[in-house]
Amino acid sequence: MGSIWGRYLRVTTFGESHGPAVGVVVDGLPAGIEIDPDRLQAEMDRRRPGASPLASARREPDRIEILSGVGQGRSLGSPIALLVRNRDARPQDYADISRLFRPGHADFTYFKKYGLPPQPGGGRASGRETAGRVAAGALVRPLLDSVGIQVRAYTVAVAGLEARRIEPGRAEADPLRFADPDLAEEAARLVEAARAEGDSVGGIIEVVAQGLPAGLGEPVFDKLEALLGGALLSIGAVKGVEFGAGFRLAARRGSEANDPIRAQGFLSNNAGGTLGGISTGQPLIARLAVKPTPSIARAQQTVDLDGREAEIKVRGRHDPCLCPRICPVAEAMTVLVLADAWLEWRARSGGLQ
Amino acid sequence: MGSIWGRYLRVTTFGESHGPAVGVVVDGLPAGIEIDPDRLQAEMDRRRPGASPLASARREPDRIEILSGVGQGRSLGSPIALLVRNRDARPQDYADISRLFRPGHADFTYFKKYGLPPQPGGGRASGRETAGRVAAGALVRPLLDSVGIQVRAYTVAVAGLEARRIEPGRAEADPLRFADPDLAEEAARLVEAARAEGDSVGGIIEVVAQGLPAGLGEPVFDKLEALLGGALLSIGAVKGVEFGAGFRLAARRGSEANDPIRAQGFLSNNAGGTLGGISTGQPLIARLAVKPTPSIARAQQTVDLDGREAEIKVRGRHDPCLCPRICPVAEAMTVLVLADAWLEWRARSGGLQ
Amino acid sequence: MGSIWGRYLRVTTFGESHGPAVGVVVDGLPAGIEIDPDRLQAEMDRRRPGASPLASARREPDRIEILSGVGQGRSLGSPIALLVRNRDARPQDYADISRLFRPGHADFTYFKKYGLPPQPGGGRASGRETAGRVAAGALVRPLLDSVGIQVRAYTVAVAGLEARRIEPGRAEADPLRFADPDLAEEAARLVEAARAEGDSVGGIIEVVAQGLPAGLGEPVFDKLEALLGGALLSIGAVKGVEFGAGFRLAARRGSEANDPIRAQGFLSNNAGGTLGGISTGQPLIARLAVKPTPSIARAQQTVDLDGREAEIKVRGRHDPCLCPRICPVAEAMTVLVLADAWLEWRARSGGLQ
Amino acid sequence: MGSIWGRYLRVTTFGESHGPAVGVVVDGLPAGIEIDPDRLQAEMDRRRPGASPLASARREPDRIEILSGVGQGRSLGSPIALLVRNRDARPQDYADISRLFRPGHADFTYFKKYGLPPQPGGGRASGRETAGRVAAGALVRPLLDSVGIQVRAYTVAVAGLEARRIEPGRAEADPLRFADPDLAEEAARLVEAARAEGDSVGGIIEVVAQGLPAGLGEPVFDKLEALLGGALLSIGAVKGVEFGAGFRLAARRGSEANDPIRAQGFLSNNAGGTLGGISTGQPLIARLAVKPTPSIARAQQTVDLDGREAEIKVRGRHDPCLCPRICPVAEAMTVLVLADAWLEWRARSGGLQ
Repeated sequence: MGSIWGRYLRVTTFGESHGPAVGVVVDGLPAGIEIDPDRLQAEMDRRRPGASPLASARREPDRIEILSGVGQGRSLGSPIALLVRNRDARPQDYADISRLFRPGHADFTYFKKYGLPPQPGGGRASGRETAGRVAAGALVRPLLDSVGIQVRAYTVAVAGLEARRIEPGRAEADPLRFADPDLAEEAARLVEAARAEGDSVGGIIEVVAQGLPAGLGEPVFDKLEALLGGALLSIGAVKGVEFGAGFRLAARRGSEANDPIRAQGFLSNNAGGTLGGISTGQPLIARLAVKPTPSIARAQQTVDLDGREAEIKVRGRHDPCLCPRICPVAEAMTVLVLADAWLEWRARSGGLQ
Repeated sequence: MGSIWGRYLRVTTFGESHGPAVGVVVDGLPAGIEIDPDRLQAEMDRRRPGASPLASARREPDRIEILSGVGQGRSLGSPIALLVRNRDARPQDYADISRLFRPGHADFTYFKKYGLPPQPGGGRASGRETAGRVAAGALVRPLLDSVGIQVRAYTVAVAGLEARRIEPGRAEADPLRFADPDLAEEAARLVEAARAEGDSVGGIIEVVAQGLPAGLGEPVFDKLEALLGGALLSIGAVKGVEFGAGFRLAARRGSEANDPIRAQGFLSNNAGGTLGGISTGQPLIARLAVKPTPSIARAQQTVDLDGREAEIKVRGRHDPCLCPRICPVAEAMTVLVLADAWLEWRARSGGLQ
Repeated sequence: MGSIWGRYLRVTTFGESHGPAVGVVVDGLPAGIEIDPDRLQAEMDRRRPGASPLASARREPDRIEILSGVGQGRSLGSPIALLVRNRDARPQDYADISRLFRPGHADFTYFKKYGLPPQPGGGRASGRETAGRVAAGALVRPLLDSVGIQVRAYTVAVAGLEARRIEPGRAEADPLRFADPDLAEEAARLVEAARAEGDSVGGIIEVVAQGLPAGLGEPVFDKLEALLGGALLSIGAVKGVEFGAGFRLAARRGSEANDPIRAQGFLSNNAGGTLGGISTGQPLIARLAVKPTPSIARAQQTVDLDGREAEIKVRGRHDPCLCPRICPVAEAMTVLVLADAWLEWRARSGGLQ
Repeated sequence: MGSIWGRYLRVTTFGESHGPAVGVVVDGLPAGIEIDPDRLQAEMDRRRPGASPLASARREPDRIEILSGVGQGRSLGSPIALLVRNRDARPQDYADISRLFRPGHADFTYFKKYGLPPQPGGGRASGRETAGRVAAGALVRPLLDSVGIQVRAYTVAVAGLEARRIEPGRAEADPLRFADPDLAEEAARLVEAARAEGDSVGGIIEVVAQGLPAGLGEPVFDKLEALLGGALLSIGAVKGVEFGAGFRLAARRGSEANDPIRAQGFLSNNAGGTLGGISTGQPLIARLAVKPTPSIARAQQTVDLDGREAEIKVRGRHDPCLCPRICPVAEAMTVLVLADAWLEWRARSGGLQ
C-alpha cells in the first residue's frame, strides 16, 4: 500500500525504475478543465533527467501518454491515467551490486519488508516514481490557476551555502534552481567539486504558494501543515520540513513570533501562511531539508544479502544534488494538497446558503 | 472535517475548550488488550494543566470516563469512547477579548472559515483537544508494549538553549521535561524570565521510538516520515519536523550522510531509523519545532471583527512554554502512527506463507 | 473497525447494548446549520423502544446529550458528539443464556472473531447501536431540508402481507409504520399472532427520497446504489436491498424496463431514480428485506461455548417485527448517504466556473 | 471520483469505452504472490465480448499488459498496473445518436453531472470499465486460493425462467452461464427470442464463496453484507442484491428463519453465511438482480440535448442478456471484498498473542 494519496482528489502512482513504465491515475478532477498535452510535457521535462550537466546522465524522453479521462482537450470528470514508458533502463549497471545493500537507499528495508533482493535502480523506491506525481501536479495546476493560486519551488541552500537574496523568477533557468543569482555560480562550483570526488551534497528547497484565500485547511488532524508536511515528507530524500520561521521559532519569544495584525493585514509572516492549520491568505511557505544523493561513487561499507561485509561503489548515472529535480516534485505535491483543500473548502463553505 | 485520523486504527477526537467535554473514539484496537483505567488516568495527568509552576494554572482534574468498548478490563474489539468533562472552564476570562483576533491564534482563520467570532479558549483550536489524543495514545500503547516498542518524548531546547547531554530518563521529572540535567535549571530560569515579562518561549522536542522491527511503513505516500511527520505537524504550535540528522543533512556530503552497514548493523543513524520511508530497526528519531505560546500578556497589535485596529493583552492561564505539555501529545501521535503501521505490516507481511 | 462511515461526512458510532452509553460523532457538517435539541430528541423518540405495544418493552428515555460541536443553536463546523446513556440495561435477563449462542444473532461470530462469550443484549451487535445513526441522521437532515430533499421510510410488507395502496403520510401513526391504511389492522393481527406464539415476523421497508437534483452520485464504485445499498445493508436484520423495480426487472424485457423520456421528463421510474449510479431527479426508491426478529421465545437448537448441544428460549424484551423500528434507521442512513453525495457534488460541480 | 475501491486492497480502474485504453491499478497485494499472465488472460477472456453467439459481436482481443508491480512472476508488493488497449472501438456506430439520451443509460445523468454530450459507447459508464475489475480479481484470486476460499458466480434466472437444479460446475460452459442444465436450452431460446425482436432480457446471478473462515467482516458499517452488497451494486445493471434467503425472509417467521446450530455446525443457511455481518464459516451466498440490457434495437421515446422529443433505436453490438458477462465481474468484486476482509482480519486477529 501507500501509493494512493489524497481525499477529494485521489492520486495513484505506479511503476518501478526499470520496469515497463511509470504512471499515475488522478481521480476527482472536476470535468471541463483544460488539459494541454504540451503543458503536461513541459512540466515533465522540468523533472526529466539528462537536462543539465549537473544532473543524472540517464536519457529518458519521458513522453507522456494520456490513456483516459480526457476528451477534446478537457477533463471528462473520470479518472485520468497517464503513462510514461521506461526507455533507457540499464539494469546491467546494477548487475554487480545486486546482492549488496546500497547505504542510504531502501534496498535494506525493502529486503526486510518484501523479501526482495535489491532491485535495479531501486525499483519502486526510485526517484523515477515521482514522474507520476509531477504529471498529476501538471494536470491539477490549471484548477489552482483558475482561482489565482500559484505555486513555486526553488533551491535556497546547497552544500551548506545559503541563498541570501532570493529571486524565485531566476531560479528556473539555473541548473540547480538556486534562487540567489549572486551565489549561483559558487553553488554550482560546490556541487561540481563534490561530484569530482565521487561524492554528493544536500540542500534546502523552499516552496511558496501565493494567492490562497483565507480558510483553506481543516482543524486538528488535517491542518494544512499536517497535510502538506506529510506530502512533502513523502518525497524521497526529504528528511525535514518547516513552515514560516520554522525551527527558528524555537529560539524566539512569543512577542517576536506572533504576526501582528493591522487593518491592511498581517505585518509579518512568521507563521508561514497558516494559523490553527488554516490558511490566513498570506503566502504559504514551506522549507524542505534534502539529504545528499545516497548513490555515490566513493567506497562505502555495507553487507550483502547474507550479511557478509563488503565494500560498494555505486556506479550509474546519479545527480550530485537532488534539489533541482525535487523542486518540480515539491511543487506538484503542494499543488495537489492545495487543490484537495480547495475542493474540501468548496464542499462545505457557505453551509446552507 | 479533519478530526479523524488513521488507517488501520481510526481515532476521532471531539470537543471544544469551553464546551461540555472533550473526548475521543478509537476504532480498530484489537480485542483482548488490557485497558487499565489507572494507567489511562496517569497518562492524562502527564498532559494535564496545573501540574507545575511553569504550566497554565487552569485546574482540570481531567477524570477520564470510559463509555464503550471495554469489558472486564480488556478491549472488546469495538470502538472505545473516552470522555473528559470540562470543569474549570471560565469563559468570562475571554469576555473582553471576544471581538478581537488574538495574534498567533486561530481566531482569524476560524472566523474566515466558519464565520465564527473568537471562541472562548479557542474553541476547537484549543490545546485542550489534545486530551483526546493523549487518551488514545494511552489506550494503544499496550499494543506496542507487547511487541517491544517504546516511545518517549522530551524537550531538547527551550528559548534558544539546546540540550547537550541528553538523559531521557530524567526528563519526566523536570517541569519543562528538559532532557539535559546539567542545563535544566538554566532552562527554567529562561522560561521564568520570559513569563515575568509577560512573554513566552519556544523550543524543540525530540521523540524516539525504540524496538521497532525492520519493515514498518510503506513506500511512496505512506512513508513513516510522511505519516509521522504529518501526525506531529497536526499538533498545534508545531511548525517543523525533521528526522535523524534532518536539516543538518542539507549541509553534508553523501559520504557523511549515508549510514554505513556492518555485520552487526548500522554504524550510525543519520537517517533517523528509516530508509525509503520504511523502518530499519534502528531507533526512529524525530525532532519538532515548537513555537512560543501565542497567548502573551504583552500588548500586541490586532484588529477586531470589523477590521478596526486595536491592542490586545491576552489574559488567562497560559503556559509560558508549550514543550512540556506537548511531549505527551507527541508521544501519543507517535504511538498511534507506529501502531497503525504495525497493523498494516501485520495484514500483509508474509504474503501467502 | 467498521464503526466509521462516510466520505465527506464522517459518522462514528460507539457503544454496547448494556455498557454505559451509546453515541455518535459526526464530523464534516458545515458550520451554521441549526441544531434543535427538541428536534433531535423527537427523532430519537421515533426509534425508541417501549413506544408501542408491538415493540420491545425495554424502557429507555434515550435522552440525548450534546457534548460538542454546537454553539448558540448552530453547528460550529467541528465534530458534533452526541451521547445517550443506557439506563434500563438488565444484564440479568441474559445471565442464564450467556454461554449459549442465540440462533440468528451475532453471538457465534463475535465469539469466533473476538473470543468473547455472548454479550448481554448482543453488546456491540445490538440494535441499540442504531441510536447513534438516528441521532446523526437527525443532525444532518436540516442540510437536506435546506436544498429541498425529503426522505421517508415506511413498512410495505409484514409477515407476507404486502401493502397495495401506499400512503406514506399515514404510516408514521401506525404501530408498524405500515403504509397501507386498508391493511394496517390485518398486518397488526399477523404480528400479534406470531408474538402470541413466541415467534416473530419479517417484512419489507421502502425508503423514498424526493427532491434530489440530477447529478448526485459518482460513477463506478460510488454509484448511489452502491453507497446507499451498502449503507442500508449495514443495518442489522436487513438481508436484501433493491432499487426501483429491483428484482422484478430480472423477469422483464428491456422495452419494459427502460424508462422513456419525454420533454416533461421520465414517463416511469423503473430505475428508482438513478441511471449509471447518478440521480436522475426522479424519486430515489429503495426497498429493504428485513428478516424476522431473531430473538424468539420458542425453543431453538443451539450449542454452548464448548460446542455442547442445548436448547435455548430467548427471553427479554424483543420486538416481534423489526420494521417499525428500522424505518427511522433506514431514513437516517439515506439522509447520510444523500448529504454525503450532495457535499461531493458541491465540491466538484461547475469545475472552473 | 468513485473509481477507487477498497480499504486494505485499493483498486483504481480507469478508461472510457472508446478511449485509448481501460485498465486498473491494484495497491496492497502482498509481495510474493504468483502472477501468471496466462491465468490473467484466461480470466479476461471469460468477460470478453464476442465469445458467444448470445453476446455482443464487438471483437476485442483484450490482451492484458502488465505495467508494474510484478517481477519474476511474482508480486513485488508495489502497485500492479494492468492495461488493456481498446482496439475495436467504432465511435461511428454512435455518431447518429450522439445528441440523444439512450433510455436506461447514463447519458442523461452524465450530461446533467458533467455537461458532457452522450459519449461513444457510454464513455466511462460503459460495461467495458469492468475489464479492470476482472483483471483486479484475477490478480487477487491466488491470495484467496492460498487460504482455501473459492468464489463462483452463475446465472440462476433469465427472462423470468428460474433455475431449479443448480449445478455450478456446468454453468461455465453454457453461453448464458445458466446453472440448470435441464433448462439451459429453454433459457437460450427465451434470450434469442427477445433478441430477434430487437429486445433484451434481465436475469438473476448467484455468487457463492466457499471455504471462508468464521470471523471475516466487521461490525456496524463494514458488515460483509454492506461491503459485498455495495460492491455488487456498483456493477452497472445490477439493481438489487440479497443474501441467503434474502427477500424471502420478509415473509417468514423467526422460527423458520434462524439457522439452528448443532455440534456439527449450522443445520441450514438462511443467513447466507453471515451473522451480525461477520462470516459464520458457511458458504456466503448473494443473489443479484440484473436489469435487461438497456441498448435495444426497438424504437424508444427520448429527448435530445436540447430537450426536443425524438425516437431512438440503439444500434451497435449489444448482449441481449448481461448475465453471462456480469458473472465474472461479480466474482471479481466478491474476490476483492473477501481478500480485503481477510487482510483486515489478519491485521487484528489474535490481538497481542
